Amino acid sequence: MAAGHGSLRAMTSTERPPTPPVFDAAFQTTLVDLFRWRRDERHFKTDVLREGELDTLLNLAALAPSVGNSQPWRFVKVTSPGKRKTIRQNFERCNTEALTDYHGEKARLYASLKLEGMDRAPEQIAVFCDNGTDTGLGLGQKTMPETLHYSVVGAINMLWLASRARGIGLGWVSIIDPVEVAATLDVPEAWSLVAYLCIGYPEAEHIDPELHRLGWQERLDVSEFVFER
Amino acid sequence: MAAGHGSLRAMTSTERPPTPPVFDAAFQTTLVDLFRWRRDERHFKTDVLREGELDTLLNLAALAPSVGNSQPWRFVKVTSPGKRKTIRQNFERCNTEALTDYHGEKARLYASLKLEGMDRAPEQIAVFCDNGTDTGLGLGQKTMPETLHYSVVGAINMLWLASRARGIGLGWVSIIDPVEVAATLDVPEAWSLVAYLCIGYPEAEHIDPELHRLGWQERLDVSEFVFER
Repeated sequence: MAAGHGSLRAMTSTERPPTPPVFDAAFQTTLVDLFRWRRDERHFKTDVLREGELDTLLNLAALAPSVGNSQPWRFVKVTSPGKRKTIRQNFERCNTEALTDYHGEKARLYASLKLEGMDRAPEQIAVFCDNGTDTGLGLGQKTMPETLHYSVVGAINMLWLASRARGIGLGWVSIIDPVEVAATLDVPEAWSLVAYLCIGYPEAEHIDPELHRLGWQERLDVSEFVFER
Repeated sequence: MAAGHGSLRAMTSTERPPTPPVFDAAFQTTLVDLFRWRRDERHFKTDVLREGELDTLLNLAALAPSVGNSQPWRFVKVTSPGKRKTIRQNFERCNTEALTDYHGEKARLYASLKLEGMDRAPEQIAVFCDNGTDTGLGLGQKTMPETLHYSVVGAINMLWLASRARGIGLGWVSIIDPVEVAATLDVPEAWSLVAYLCIGYPEAEHIDPELHRLGWQERLDVSEFVFER
């Protein structure tokens, strides 16, 4: 694949370093389109991904930045129907409980939202952070240990964009008990869940988030998130 | 700008939805190049960014996904020389202390690493998470409240890629006392620091991370981060 590791090996003295690519105006514009059309997908077709596509995407995700090069992302493909069912029940229980936080019109709206695509998404991936890794030797984590988890989040965002560029949707399920997911999947004790992802081809493509479209929340104005000191 | 909010407003009944873009093979390949050539930059030219460029980038960052559409990112442009100096001293103290965790050859290597670009980067941005925001009404955060911070990390990764596509480097400084940065910048109490960023034109472009090139840490093999259950 294009992101193979071959070109990342140490160069011998006779090799010349690769030429930096040119990211031209057309690419920059299309990249903006990619950002604008990336959605948190919940409505999937049941079509499976092409052979090898998921591994290609996971290798691209691993090109994300990580604190001290710790690369703490651990992707677990959840293929067992039994484990998928258990995790979906986990979501359903947490979602029912979350609903009790809302009242009146917002409760009615919340109850009508589709907040995950676990019913149809052909691929499901639990993404963990390996808190016990010694890769990177702890560099950069001393005062902000949370950057280890943040590195995993970066990989998920790379996965998200790489998927969307290939017409593949990704939905992040956070309404879930993370400790239970770890138990269901029997992962090492040092791993903590960062995200549960549904991946597949979307039923439709939208430029606006579903939560905007359905009236849950509008986009902030730049004056609300940029400041100066 | 291309990512302006005009097209995100509610459509009237006479408007047709925009046509989804085509992300062709050439774009997909160049996107992989973008992932491969995005670096955690520490060596900046002192050239300033073009007028308006930083605001364009911050608007693109705000196209990131966020839990329940909470959009909790708060970008503080640090322009005061006094505050920049205080934050650089914060880094230096934390970095000196971090060095004591390493011994022998690794300590010598650590001491030789350049871990931030605050000496020359023309732009510096402290990125906070507004833990007190009611935007998004808490949707999706009940069982995994850390997703609010994760949303800010996503925005930083969008900023990173959008910058690199325009030839602009970004370096994430994590060796810093986050509470002190918040105090230095006098931000609301509910905000917590997620990252301190240096932004500017890089002195050189590299396909390999500096920590690989200098022998701190190699890239993991896919077998070390992809599993199945």
